[in-house]
Amino acid sequence: MKMANSVLAGDRLSLSRLLTQIENNTSEGRQAMDELFAYTGRAHLIGVTGAPGTGKSSLVNRLAYHFRNPPEGKPSARVAIVAVDPTSPFTGGAVLGDRIRMRDLAGDSGVFIRSMATRGALGGLASATSGLVEVFDAAGYDLIFIETVGAGQVEVDIARLAQTTLVVDAPGLGDDVQAIKAGILEIADILVVNKADRPGAAQTVRALRQMLNLAHPAPKVFPHHGWMLNELESSTQVAAQQTLSDGSGEELWIPPIVSTAATEGEGIVELAAALESHRNYLSRTGEGLMRDRARLVAGLEGRIRDLLMKRWQAGADWEAVEAVIDRLAGRSITPAQAVEMLLDGNTPEVGPGGSV
Amino acid sequence: MKMANSVLAGDRLSLSRLLTQIENNTSEGRQAMDELFAYTGRAHLIGVTGAPGTGKSSLVNRLAYHFRNPPEGKPSARVAIVAVDPTSPFTGGAVLGDRIRMRDLAGDSGVFIRSMATRGALGGLASATSGLVEVFDAAGYDLIFIETVGAGQVEVDIARLAQTTLVVDAPGLGDDVQAIKAGILEIADILVVNKADRPGAAQTVRALRQMLNLAHPAPKVFPHHGWMLNELESSTQVAAQQTLSDGSGEELWIPPIVSTAATEGEGIVELAAALESHRNYLSRTGEGLMRDRARLVAGLEGRIRDLLMKRWQAGADWEAVEAVIDRLAGRSITPAQAVEMLLDGNTPEVGPGGSV
Repeated sequence: MKMANSVLAGDRLSLSRLLTQIENNTSEGRQAMDELFAYTGRAHLIGVTGAPGTGKSSLVNRLAYHFRNPPEGKPSARVAIVAVDPTSPFTGGAVLGDRIRMRDLAGDSGVFIRSMATRGALGGLASATSGLVEVFDAAGYDLIFIETVGAGQVEVDIARLAQTTLVVDAPGLGDDVQAIKAGILEIADILVVNKADRPGAAQTVRALRQMLNLAHPAPKVFPHHGWMLNELESSTQVAAQQTLSDGSGEELWIPPIVSTAATEGEGIVELAAALESHRNYLSRTGEGLMRDRARLVAGLEGRIRDLLMKRWQAGADWEAVEAVIDRLAGRSITPAQAVEMLLDGNTPEVGPGGSV
Repeated sequence: MKMANSVLAGDRLSLSRLLTQIENNTSEGRQAMDELFAYTGRAHLIGVTGAPGTGKSSLVNRLAYHFRNPPEGKPSARVAIVAVDPTSPFTGGAVLGDRIRMRDLAGDSGVFIRSMATRGALGGLASATSGLVEVFDAAGYDLIFIETVGAGQVEVDIARLAQTTLVVDAPGLGDDVQAIKAGILEIADILVVNKADRPGAAQTVRALRQMLNLAHPAPKVFPHHGWMLNELESSTQVAAQQTLSDGSGEELWIPPIVSTAATEGEGIVELAAALESHRNYLSRTGEGLMRDRARLVAGLEGRIRDLLMKRWQAGADWEAVEAVIDRLAGRSITPAQAVEMLLDGNTPEVGPGGSV
């Protein structure tokens, strides 16, 4: 209770400690999260995914810097970055250090960067990430970037925690990477071609445009909207062309392609505008509430599964369980029979293959 | 029942149909799998993982060709390859086509290649892959390669289905990839530096050796075993130096580093020898049975979780569930309270934050 209060009061050290508690899935952390839950649902959650080598970290750093120091007297946003990194079993920590990231943002109290190690179980990683994000949300961070190192299924799942998902690509990454791209394209709200100052950038944009074209096949409602295939280059265009009405009052979002060169600071203003435009779209259409609800339901389902399993485990006769596993490993019963025996205490009368 | 019999009789078309049934998780597929279970546990399951761009597919193709056409009059093995690929939502199929892979192995009836699309849920992918592997095992394939496109957590989980895991690296893949490597190193039974004819290969081997050194810090039992850090180059060395006795009768396996240039066919004989050496280690030490058991237990746990959830869902009052979700989305109850209400029908008396 004390911890939750300190976090709400803006204490950085308490925040940092709570994040660790959540990563380690302690009961103290879970309790604090429950207490903070009522204060969540305000931040803009932005997922950033894409293959290794696309420069996601630099891009997120630049975006964070932009929103901390916005042009034209706009209010400065508080920014959190959750970087989900693979961990090495021997260093026990995240590989991409916070130190490297802090170069641009050092000493800014309105920025909080947290690296998450991919230790522990699968479900555990997505749920721990979700926990960190909720704490940052409750602690009053306006923008929360959820950045993953890879572009695999877990990364996609983690990015799905977000309300806006950036999929980052870059020229010259080879065919395997191209294959990965196809799988994650469907979750993109905004496509970014980073390292756009490198050779092949125009080709990458063209390839993405074609894939988008296939993903959103010739729209039946709007056969005349050929413009959706055009590269959207300026922030004005991005803002103006994001949405269209389908006549029934529903708006559609067409993922724009934004070119950036993060290390040079190019395209960041345009990308920031696209992010704000998507955020406006989410709140205007109610889509934001739907995504929030979907995220909560997914979390709930995980909790229900875990608790059902925990209750079963608490009541299980472990000697009997061992005996069932022995028979399974010896191939004298099938997995289906094993489950039946474990959940209902039934002993199968026919061995496997007996009916084959 | 008919399907399982045809598969056992070696009918390729039935096998192919059953694989599809399992991918689609049909009840027919599940029943056939249960019938085939008694015939599993014979194949050598080999996981192949590593970052995109390391040439895993070429490597697996070459290994398959090698085991189909072994030197020195050894018996030819039947080989199955399960390639787990990300799928594009619009093609509805796997990106890496079977056609490309079949160039080397075309027309060989002792080889079966199957691409798995990463459609559907997370747990679903690993469990579907596990299903395919079991069917190939029952169908009498001696070697089953489980190849994944990426090197993320899901890939690692899928590779864990295997008894022997190859982690493939290649020179010149950049820093992000280096980070991924750290995370998957711990699951490697054999490390492969592919594309060893490219510049930087020696450096990659050196880097891996150092990471191995850190992962297996100066062994307390064998302070004199400096050789474990040496690159193992010939298959004889590989076979001779894989294992050592720690005096208590237990053998340790030190992951060797094997250099290959798959497209040139270099190092394949040595890698094949390392695979056989690891297989011998597994059966000699009982470690193989332990890994088989661990895989079965993991599968069992998934089935138990699914069935518990299914039973809960079958008995749930969905109107009440909707009402609980509404209150959760409105932040008037916490996730913990929502779960309690859903599982036990309790209504919390204190709202969230009430005790903060």
